[in-house]
Amino acid sequence: MPTEVDELTDLLRQNDTDALSARLSEAPARPLARVLRQLGRHDALAVFESFPVERADELFHLLDGEVRGDLLSGLPPALAARYFALLDPDDRAWLCQRLPTDIWSPLLEQLPPDSREATLRLMAYPADTTGRAMSPHVIGVDVDQLAGGALEQVRQASSRTETVYMLPVIDGDDVVVGVVSLRRLVTSDPEATVAQLMKAPAVVVRAEQNQEEAARAVREAQLIAAPVVDEAGRLVGVLTVDDAMRILAEVDDEDAARGTGSTPLRRSYLATSVLELMRSRIGWLLILIVAATLTVNVLDYFEDTLAQVVTLALFVPLLIGTGGNAGSQSATMVVRAMAVGDIRTQDLGRVVRREVATGLLLGLTLATFGLLPAALFAGWPIALVVGLSLVTICVLATGVGSSIPLLARRFGFDPAVVSAPFISTVVDATGLIVYFVTARLVLGIG
Amino acid sequence: MPTEVDELTDLLRQNDTDALSARLSEAPARPLARVLRQLGRHDALAVFESFPVERADELFHLLDGEVRGDLLSGLPPALAARYFALLDPDDRAWLCQRLPTDIWSPLLEQLPPDSREATLRLMAYPADTTGRAMSPHVIGVDVDQLAGGALEQVRQASSRTETVYMLPVIDGDDVVVGVVSLRRLVTSDPEATVAQLMKAPAVVVRAEQNQEEAARAVREAQLIAAPVVDEAGRLVGVLTVDDAMRILAEVDDEDAARGTGSTPLRRSYLATSVLELMRSRIGWLLILIVAATLTVNVLDYFEDTLAQVVTLALFVPLLIGTGGNAGSQSATMVVRAMAVGDIRTQDLGRVVRREVATGLLLGLTLATFGLLPAALFAGWPIALVVGLSLVTICVLATGVGSSIPLLARRFGFDPAVVSAPFISTVVDATGLIVYFVTARLVLGIG
Repeated sequence: MPTEVDELTDLLRQNDTDALSARLSEAPARPLARVLRQLGRHDALAVFESFPVERADELFHLLDGEVRGDLLSGLPPALAARYFALLDPDDRAWLCQRLPTDIWSPLLEQLPPDSREATLRLMAYPADTTGRAMSPHVIGVDVDQLAGGALEQVRQASSRTETVYMLPVIDGDDVVVGVVSLRRLVTSDPEATVAQLMKAPAVVVRAEQNQEEAARAVREAQLIAAPVVDEAGRLVGVLTVDDAMRILAEVDDEDAARGTGSTPLRRSYLATSVLELMRSRIGWLLILIVAATLTVNVLDYFEDTLAQVVTLALFVPLLIGTGGNAGSQSATMVVRAMAVGDIRTQDLGRVVRREVATGLLLGLTLATFGLLPAALFAGWPIALVVGLSLVTICVLATGVGSSIPLLARRFGFDPAVVSAPFISTVVDATGLIVYFVTARLVLGIG
Repeated sequence: MPTEVDELTDLLRQNDTDALSARLSEAPARPLARVLRQLGRHDALAVFESFPVERADELFHLLDGEVRGDLLSGLPPALAARYFALLDPDDRAWLCQRLPTDIWSPLLEQLPPDSREATLRLMAYPADTTGRAMSPHVIGVDVDQLAGGALEQVRQASSRTETVYMLPVIDGDDVVVGVVSLRRLVTSDPEATVAQLMKAPAVVVRAEQNQEEAARAVREAQLIAAPVVDEAGRLVGVLTVDDAMRILAEVDDEDAARGTGSTPLRRSYLATSVLELMRSRIGWLLILIVAATLTVNVLDYFEDTLAQVVTLALFVPLLIGTGGNAGSQSATMVVRAMAVGDIRTQDLGRVVRREVATGLLLGLTLATFGLLPAALFAGWPIALVVGLSLVTICVLATGVGSSIPLLARRFGFDPAVVSAPFISTVVDATGLIVYFVTARLVLGIG
């Protein structure tokens, strides 16, 4: 079954611009926006330029940030400036953060002065702060007003306002003193005062606050939007739930990639070249293979023991594999629990105690059931060595697996990035030492 | 620094009910709802019962589903029935799905008839469908009405309506023909007809549709809510963005846990006993350790080769570790790309070709840099064996790592669950075979 991507790629390869235009003339914008994600940069540009010009604004609005960036870099300057001006200030700030300066700087120059100022204001906030991701277009409702007046203010407000469903209530100094929902305004007596109708905001985000943290707060409180304030508590913008969802989806993508030592892809998978795929992964694999030479050293040190009892080598993959599995279970659970706020760095001692106890139970259970095949293969003395090592390795793996993410956080590293690689290296090497020392003691060899 | 959890736990241990009540009398409900997540079932109940009764409704509303379930199971029947009745039908259906029948059945009996019917209606939808997670309380606006009339309908609507910001527009047969935002209604001429103001809905969800799929559609289209319809297109409910976010957060939690072979925890990490932690992980570890005996068999088969060249054993952890890392990078990338819809099962051939090419590049790069330490340790013949095996193992790992998630999906399994365990087993065992066969050929031994 040929997909839409295949179909468009074929038309592009055949250089059949008429057929391409005809094909696109009926194409609905939303599914096409998905298809553009999956095309290479050059193909995406060709398709966008063949799309009916009267619907191109709509299509551009539906595109991912990455695809928008590619198009802005490739379109004729006048067109690029036009589409750039159509975007919300937060989307423009996002692009400026990622595009080369020689692309975004002229685009910014050509904006109307107020749009340029709104964009620059967001860009002034440090990367990863809420200030970068918020919308500056927000209506602050005066606390002394009546409901009817506030509703009139919403009616008058520019159509560019990001949301009107959650309205921050401000005093004479622009300080946020409450929030009122449009629902409340619509269903209340127009003569009621805003002060009577407003509630304390469930979440107020500071513009300097970390994006991910703010997005989690919005999600957890199930809000449509949260007011964003400066250090003095004055209203500077709004963080809507869809911005929050976008931020959290990006974070999840990055964590999933980084958890296995890959760099997150800039474009969709099929639109990324094999060379880029390779580059996104080789870094950590190289570091890990260098770290893994530690296991070569350990085994080299015990080569005499190995030469005397070659059978010991048979259980090396099983033991370090189990250690790795147990360690990554602990690490994943702790990373998730930290992400949702169930564990903080000061819980380190408590978490490690629990994990070590869990590791002991896991090791004892696995050894009980894992001993039988070992005994059948290699006899009871080796089975005893394997069993004892297995218990120790499980305790070690859960202890290391749970403490590394917490220590990483305490020292300011991203727990999701460093955990898996560090754990496997530490557990593999120490697990082998445990195994061979146990073997020497139990089997009475040197 | 003692945390709030420690403080409350201490008061509970001291059985000091007066001090506990005094401590809770000033406690704001929202942070306390978080603290309850982190207490054991028994402690959470004790804290809830000591909380000022006049604010208990608010606190109950802020709690997680799991904590609510624990409280409903432990509270006196009359109180449990009271809190159960306060919930939205979708929250009640969620609880009934998870609580034992002898708990939820009497609770359901005591509901007012209309609430009971609303709850049963949702429970009639199969698990994991949108019907289970949607709210049935939705206002359908008549397409023939004027904007002013529609706004009046919103004003009259029960305060239990889940959202009024996205209003489905229906014809005389309740069939959804469009949507209109409250913003549009408020800012338009009251004499305009709803038909003039409405738009085609960006997303319409079928009640039988998978929850996760529907939630992703709502997130991707950045909607506040989507109408939910039956097979005939008639309005039956609404899926709001906060329901969508809750569904996706649950899915992420489950995937993260299942990816390492754990069962997702029912409660927060610190509220889960060590025995439960152990139970959530032992299942897959046992399966994996049994599967890992395959590596013991492979090594046993090659024991003569090992006995002749013990040095070969030194590189076993490095080789299978690298295979595992490369394989899990591929698997993670493919699982993410499938989750966001960038890859479908019919792309299998294309994906595997790309991954095998990536694996070849990774293997060659790693072999080039990984050969040096091997050569220093073990001399060039062994280095050649290690290098050749490394390249083959990388190709194997990326091929297997990328195809297993796609094949799992095709055969109806959850790719996130089966991938990591299967990949490590397959890659470990075949990698060892590759290594020893290469060694026999290159070193000319038997």
